[in-house]
Amino acid sequence: MSTGFELLARDGSARRGRLATAHGTAETPAFMPVGTAGTVKAMLPDQVRETGAEIVLGNTYHLMLRPSAERVAKLGGLHRFMDWPGPILTDSGGFQVMSLGQLRKLDQRGVVFRSHIDGAQHSLTPERSIEIQHLLDADITMVLDECTSWPVERRAAEKSMRLSLGWAERSKQAFRARQGYGLFGIVQGSVFDDLRAESAKALVDIGFDGYAVGGLAVGEGQAEMFRTLDATVHLLPQDRPRYLMGVGRPDDILGAVARGIDMFDCVLPTRMGRTGKAFTRRGELNMRNARHAEDPRPIEEGCACPACTRFSRAYLNHLFKAGEMLGPMLLTRHNLQHYQDLMREIRAAIEAGRWAAFREERAALYLTGDIAPAA
Amino acid sequence: MSTGFELLARDGSARRGRLATAHGTAETPAFMPVGTAGTVKAMLPDQVRETGAEIVLGNTYHLMLRPSAERVAKLGGLHRFMDWPGPILTDSGGFQVMSLGQLRKLDQRGVVFRSHIDGAQHSLTPERSIEIQHLLDADITMVLDECTSWPVERRAAEKSMRLSLGWAERSKQAFRARQGYGLFGIVQGSVFDDLRAESAKALVDIGFDGYAVGGLAVGEGQAEMFRTLDATVHLLPQDRPRYLMGVGRPDDILGAVARGIDMFDCVLPTRMGRTGKAFTRRGELNMRNARHAEDPRPIEEGCACPACTRFSRAYLNHLFKAGEMLGPMLLTRHNLQHYQDLMREIRAAIEAGRWAAFREERAALYLTGDIAPAA
Repeated sequence: MSTGFELLARDGSARRGRLATAHGTAETPAFMPVGTAGTVKAMLPDQVRETGAEIVLGNTYHLMLRPSAERVAKLGGLHRFMDWPGPILTDSGGFQVMSLGQLRKLDQRGVVFRSHIDGAQHSLTPERSIEIQHLLDADITMVLDECTSWPVERRAAEKSMRLSLGWAERSKQAFRARQGYGLFGIVQGSVFDDLRAESAKALVDIGFDGYAVGGLAVGEGQAEMFRTLDATVHLLPQDRPRYLMGVGRPDDILGAVARGIDMFDCVLPTRMGRTGKAFTRRGELNMRNARHAEDPRPIEEGCACPACTRFSRAYLNHLFKAGEMLGPMLLTRHNLQHYQDLMREIRAAIEAGRWAAFREERAALYLTGDIAPAA
Repeated sequence: MSTGFELLARDGSARRGRLATAHGTAETPAFMPVGTAGTVKAMLPDQVRETGAEIVLGNTYHLMLRPSAERVAKLGGLHRFMDWPGPILTDSGGFQVMSLGQLRKLDQRGVVFRSHIDGAQHSLTPERSIEIQHLLDADITMVLDECTSWPVERRAAEKSMRLSLGWAERSKQAFRARQGYGLFGIVQGSVFDDLRAESAKALVDIGFDGYAVGGLAVGEGQAEMFRTLDATVHLLPQDRPRYLMGVGRPDDILGAVARGIDMFDCVLPTRMGRTGKAFTRRGELNMRNARHAEDPRPIEEGCACPACTRFSRAYLNHLFKAGEMLGPMLLTRHNLQHYQDLMREIRAAIEAGRWAAFREERAALYLTGDIAPAA
């Protein structure tokens, strides 16, 4: 029953593993491209797969509103609908609903909210979130939680974390165990170590197939994020995958892998690709910058993606200036390639027992580009 | 010297041929996808090639303004810039410049106009148009002409046609002959048979590697277009390719091939793809239509494109409703596949001597869809 997780190697706190689901396996540490509305934006599924991605993320909030979970189920589930035969993790919908602000009302039962699309009223409870994720046929289902905002008073963070614990319990009860399908709990507690510890221990007592760390990368900064991971990750079981939600830039990923995280998702490679920003080993390049206009070089020498093997920086600069769709298509492809190449190298370094040296070297290199990574 | 054209078979007035250029051959009748600004919108070059396209069109007007012909030349020419190693035909820039209306001034020397991008003043003469197309490294260069507007008085059509003849002469003088590179003249004269005849004869006297019929599909309607082709095409040399500019819908192409046309270009498959319209053998489908929302069928059974082999109409409907870029990507791909499949079938029918039956059957089928083809 449930998803499987095999720990293949360790180097310090960094882990090399393999996640097994109903729709196949994913090597960890893994980065999951975000397929918000049933598509990794500007990419065909085969192109996503070509980058090396093995698991993608879908957003319950977007899919429940459009085309609706029931319709996706009627059409054979999300894998078939979006032509992604591999593993899919869906979030609970909570994060997007909470960010609706005035448009939502939250209490112990759940959240009532208005759709950002047509204003129609919807409700999301732990039970309904799990039902939706079942209908989508997610390999990994996330419990409904409240992603505590930041900055936050301790009292509010405590109340929010306890609310999420109650919802985690209800999510567990609502989840139907099936071979290859897993349910992940989400540790909350903001930047308060004792709240994180309380959350982690209570979730482990309930028992989940994996554990996510939520409520980070919400403005607290990388140093505070790493400190919170230091205080949290060691409380999670060694034999279950650990997922840092919504993170992050390449150097965030390096730091989190060093602290024992196995899974990541983030919109940055796709979103930044659409606006002309390219990730490289030496930091980020803005392809709209006029200095690329006559540059015959590829974005990055040695990168195997079509943007680098077939086109010049000058051409990419032209595409973005001309507002051509091929610009976002190529840069999304490149950025996802960059992320998957990074994950592949991370996995190889851990396997080879040279993780610390690799991490140090790569993190230093990322700081040499023309756009410094955000703090 | 020049481009080559081999006539392989004839069936009635329909011709089956092969165009040979410096960058390879193209089987005719051929449809050229439009790569306006150095990209067939929403498509990677490999995807364009996968549809069966062998030659694409580039727009001098767009490329001269951005990134500029000189920059494209510096970067190795348009083939390398846009990663299209096959034949490229460029238009003269005239059509777009004429449509600028208030923003341009025309006299015998050429056109002075303001860029639609930044308002900067540019000029386009026959000599400059040819120079730009040389710089782009176009396999087929088009003479600068004035695309006569419609409706038009006979006197104005005559004056415009004579202006274009003078420019054709100057274009010929400016063109540097090289092996595999050709220059095409353009017949004008609106819907006046004697003007068309005068234009065609004068162009043949000047001597070109191919002959285009311009100034059609500008509002005169399909019947008038076919009538004008009937009056014009027989005046063109049998041993040179004939190109009907800016045409058209599938049934326009069927009618024009029947009248001896070998080459076509049109933005319809790409432009309509971006707005959710799919070409099928039974007419056009609007994928935004709510009746597709739960339809598990592909756009068209038997179509080999990824939109049809991998996805449902329901998914495509979802992508367009959600404003996802993958919608335009997939429908552009499908529409180009539809056009290239049509051209392949046209070529096979002419070769097999069953052109008349094929044409009748396909033209009738196109009228059965949910959007009737435009008149």
